[in-house]
Amino acid sequence: MLDSFKIGHYTDEENGTGATVILCEKGAVGGVSVRGAAPATRETDLLRNGKLVQKVNAVTLSGGSAFGLECASGVMDYLFEKGLGYNAGKFNVPIVVGASLYDLEYKNFAYPSKKDGYEAAKAARTDNFEGGCIGAGTGATVSKMAGMESARKAGLGVQAYSLNGLEIAVIVAVNALGDIVKDGKIILGAQAPDGGYLDSLKVFSAGSLELKNQNTTIGCIITNARLTKEQANILADLAHDGFALSISPSHTMFDGDAMFCLASGEKDIEFNLLTAIIPRLTAEAIRAAAGQNDTPFLGKKVNKLMFGFFQKMWKK
Amino acid sequence: MLDSFKIGHYTDEENGTGATVILCEKGAVGGVSVRGAAPATRETDLLRNGKLVQKVNAVTLSGGSAFGLECASGVMDYLFEKGLGYNAGKFNVPIVVGASLYDLEYKNFAYPSKKDGYEAAKAARTDNFEGGCIGAGTGATVSKMAGMESARKAGLGVQAYSLNGLEIAVIVAVNALGDIVKDGKIILGAQAPDGGYLDSLKVFSAGSLELKNQNTTIGCIITNARLTKEQANILADLAHDGFALSISPSHTMFDGDAMFCLASGEKDIEFNLLTAIIPRLTAEAIRAAAGQNDTPFLGKKVNKLMFGFFQKMWKK
Repeated sequence: MLDSFKIGHYTDEENGTGATVILCEKGAVGGVSVRGAAPATRETDLLRNGKLVQKVNAVTLSGGSAFGLECASGVMDYLFEKGLGYNAGKFNVPIVVGASLYDLEYKNFAYPSKKDGYEAAKAARTDNFEGGCIGAGTGATVSKMAGMESARKAGLGVQAYSLNGLEIAVIVAVNALGDIVKDGKIILGAQAPDGGYLDSLKVFSAGSLELKNQNTTIGCIITNARLTKEQANILADLAHDGFALSISPSHTMFDGDAMFCLASGEKDIEFNLLTAIIPRLTAEAIRAAAGQNDTPFLGKKVNKLMFGFFQKMWKK
Repeated sequence: MLDSFKIGHYTDEENGTGATVILCEKGAVGGVSVRGAAPATRETDLLRNGKLVQKVNAVTLSGGSAFGLECASGVMDYLFEKGLGYNAGKFNVPIVVGASLYDLEYKNFAYPSKKDGYEAAKAARTDNFEGGCIGAGTGATVSKMAGMESARKAGLGVQAYSLNGLEIAVIVAVNALGDIVKDGKIILGAQAPDGGYLDSLKVFSAGSLELKNQNTTIGCIITNARLTKEQANILADLAHDGFALSISPSHTMFDGDAMFCLASGEKDIEFNLLTAIIPRLTAEAIRAAAGQNDTPFLGKKVNKLMFGFFQKMWKK
């Protein structure tokens, strides 16, 4: 499945941060959409329509806020040693794009370094669709209307889909300010005194909380479809519709939400099919990142246990 | 002059690369415009209109192609140690934006590292408007229609302007594919057999050269004006009009041209004044980067000598 892509993780459980590296060594047509208001990104400009470079060698999703953008440098080193990248003349320059999320307050101040990025790239392998409290999801939490005091643990979610040779997966590290919802119902949120969930949307709508920038959901669509750069950009944007379906509220001013799209180009498709699939598949990946965690959460401590992360093939 | 800003350089003469760091420790309203087709950038998304963060702590201009983006991590470390940055909750996250240019083929493969970025930030001081073959301009060259074989040495250009308390400077590392021109006349270009200049624009227009991505002009406007983020973005964009006035041809598909704007906010101004000044001041800074170098250049070797770099106050 998706044999042109390799995924690798760096996981720092002790400090509560990490990174996820998605490699396409031969290069994949890339796109991006930064819909969050507080992004931390690297090399996104070259992905925009009209810019020269068409193919990307790696996407780096990292914890550690903007500090974590450093780990993309290690991924560049790894690819450069293999002679991969955009041929700029005498040298190939690996095209490594990336985004970071804010997990500095989950455990300790820490971020994935250049060395850690290199190690994650080195560890990357095909058919690695593991999710859970790993990689960029290591320090990820949701429902932070009261900061870390109301937070619930989330992580990295992966959801895959295949149909007649078309293969797609969405990988997403979910670190939203809001709750995780399905069909309008909260499936992961802050604990209410009665044992249910507090509804972040209602709390937000009712008054003014002193919100902090402790959020950001970042991810990547990978597919074997043959896409143009413009189409890859459209799909990255449509992934944010999946945010709207699964995070409440989504895209606040304190979320730096960014989605990438990489297309390896082996399969011709009807593009409209992908526009229909991507929002739902992204929403499912986000819910997967929130696991089946329905354990009670009381008080001021973040629940660090992750339950029931699943990876299943989502069949239409 | 421009007392809220400090400028520092890392210069690696041996390998022909370097970095220039522009600090505004208290934070300056920031904007960016990426008009080149082959950019290497970091943290530009947060500068765009509508995004949360308004103030930037540093701009990093670096050599070393996309590898050089690493040096911004060192600038982050320097500012973090001083407790500076955007207050994201428990921690301040320094807002360091940056762009890189391609100088890998000037001398040796090398790029400014995280450590080098830290050192450049540490070396930054006020009233440091030096230009020449330093910082991000160390490996910068122009007139590369035949790659490094036709290249002329350029560097870092600085041009400053003041009027009734308004202060502006443009700092630019000029590594363009095209020639440097003034009033339509080439002032720095590839050597023609007759001793004059080859006109890159004519050569381009006449045929198909195998052009390579060995270019990119990057820079920053700094001013004490009080600007909104939208206005800072407008000025960054207008700086590219200065490219059109001074580089021929400018903004090719092989230039990753990017300009930043930082406004420290001490001086109220009529904004239209700045829109008139910026293109011309940027063009002058670009010409300053090309020096007064009219020494003959023959053959296949890059002229590594820099003559007559000047810094003068440009009076309207």
